[in-house]
Amino acid sequence: MAVYTRVDTKDLTPFLARYGLPPATVFKGIAEGVENSNYLLESDGKRFILTLYEKRVKTEELPYFLGLMDHVVQKGAPAAAPVLDKEGICLQTLCGRPAALIEFITGTSPDTPSAPLAEAGGGAMAKLHGATADFAGRRPNALGPEGWASLIDEMGPSLDKVAIGLHQELKATLADLQAAWPKNLPQGTIHADLFPDNVLFHGDKVAGIIDFYFACTDYYAYDLAISMNAWVPEGSLDPTHAVHFRRGYETVRALSPDEANALPTFLQGSALRFLLTRAYDWLNQVPGSLVRVKDPLPYLQLLRHHRDNPTAFVEDRS
Amino acid sequence: MAVYTRVDTKDLTPFLARYGLPPATVFKGIAEGVENSNYLLESDGKRFILTLYEKRVKTEELPYFLGLMDHVVQKGAPAAAPVLDKEGICLQTLCGRPAALIEFITGTSPDTPSAPLAEAGGGAMAKLHGATADFAGRRPNALGPEGWASLIDEMGPSLDKVAIGLHQELKATLADLQAAWPKNLPQGTIHADLFPDNVLFHGDKVAGIIDFYFACTDYYAYDLAISMNAWVPEGSLDPTHAVHFRRGYETVRALSPDEANALPTFLQGSALRFLLTRAYDWLNQVPGSLVRVKDPLPYLQLLRHHRDNPTAFVEDRS
Repeated sequence: MAVYTRVDTKDLTPFLARYGLPPATVFKGIAEGVENSNYLLESDGKRFILTLYEKRVKTEELPYFLGLMDHVVQKGAPAAAPVLDKEGICLQTLCGRPAALIEFITGTSPDTPSAPLAEAGGGAMAKLHGATADFAGRRPNALGPEGWASLIDEMGPSLDKVAIGLHQELKATLADLQAAWPKNLPQGTIHADLFPDNVLFHGDKVAGIIDFYFACTDYYAYDLAISMNAWVPEGSLDPTHAVHFRRGYETVRALSPDEANALPTFLQGSALRFLLTRAYDWLNQVPGSLVRVKDPLPYLQLLRHHRDNPTAFVEDRS
Repeated sequence: MAVYTRVDTKDLTPFLARYGLPPATVFKGIAEGVENSNYLLESDGKRFILTLYEKRVKTEELPYFLGLMDHVVQKGAPAAAPVLDKEGICLQTLCGRPAALIEFITGTSPDTPSAPLAEAGGGAMAKLHGATADFAGRRPNALGPEGWASLIDEMGPSLDKVAIGLHQELKATLADLQAAWPKNLPQGTIHADLFPDNVLFHGDKVAGIIDFYFACTDYYAYDLAISMNAWVPEGSLDPTHAVHFRRGYETVRALSPDEANALPTFLQGSALRFLLTRAYDWLNQVPGSLVRVKDPLPYLQLLRHHRDNPTAFVEDRS
């Protein structure tokens, strides 16, 4: 949400020369992305995003993320393409940080997308799943059930500062979810963070998907459940946008009956996942940090709602 | 340095309609400006900056700043022009904040400008002074000698947390400056904050001056002294860039002998002015604030340097 590493034009100009690009005519830090530094950059009449990767992204994982983005674009799915320099290299170093130049996508992200946009977003996710079917990269989901267990252990009773009794409540929820978690469903590369602000629209069409830095190998239907929660306006329990997102998804890729049956478990799981990371950031706020900490409570509300009403977001198709 | 007020596209679209503009095709928060929220916006193939004014800018002063920007552009000086809506109105309300749409200027700001850029910056300031000669608006400089006295009183002995003995040192410096402060020099509208990051360059030419929100009525030579300090790389005492900035200024508007003689006093005064506001922000840091506090010490170093070597930044023309 801010610029952490300041890049001066005297560092930028030789960097752009590696791509055969002249000095920038526009260069502005933008308030976007998951704790990376992002700049909007124009050179030679073309626009780019320059990303410098900060602490939360592991350098050794960057080839996976950048390779994935490149693969998705090669397959014709709407995503931001990394740019190769004259030697065919994508991952660079700039001002001491790993850095990459990414194609700029023209489009806007509504905070509260309409139902038609939710449907378009769902369709774009299904296309992404299709486009990555032959992507060779593998990355375990560090924020799956095992990761949740570690986070709950690490925060321990301090979770009760978020809500009274939360530590015990989440331990019980975790045990239930671990028991119910499917063992064998269609899986592949998932985005794992496809909130509305990671989809750029041009009118009613998806112009591109961005921010692949949580992508990993996991169940497709779990990715769908993450976004069904994420596209419901924060703090609301109205299932309308979740239903539309799923409908858009299924127009491109229909869920199997087993996948559809797993959705209530996945909706609970993804609510727990975002509750845990938001609680962690909330409990570990750094004074003076430039990151605006997100409220964990809407995800606690969602988790309880799904637990008490397992089919609340699942359309009645009888 | 961040986005404080989040604007959703559902609020933006009716706002743009007031200007006869279609929905935005690009809308990104940018990390720029003095505690305002700034967005880069594209609509109808044209680019704009959308500014929402936050706490530090007084709403009743906005017509002065926007009127000044408009006047400067009308006179042909390079600056960012406010855009009028279909009814000829510039100052709007958006998401509960005063807001204005400003023309986008293509250009970049080097952190450490070269000597030729410093010279170009000085020339642009002199043109700005010329362009505002017939601007009717008046705004007293709240950060002149009287304002410094108030700031020193308000911070009091807590100034000693910035540097040992600073409270007494600054009281003595203030008394000296008040005694030496000129009573009658050419004055008019000054920018009062023309740091390198408020000048956009296109190659070696000034594309535009931005961020007029400290502009006020004061001595032209004081404005020059502010920038002579500001264009020296932070932490350095090398006068090269100050000399070049002044040289560029004087190619457009020569200083009178009285103005030239006042420069040592003005260089001390402007060092004190930025030392005081930086010390104030440093002493009053808000935990969790999105503002990165600037280090006051380089300005203490500059102040002492000018006090001990009054002609250090003043070219020997003998």
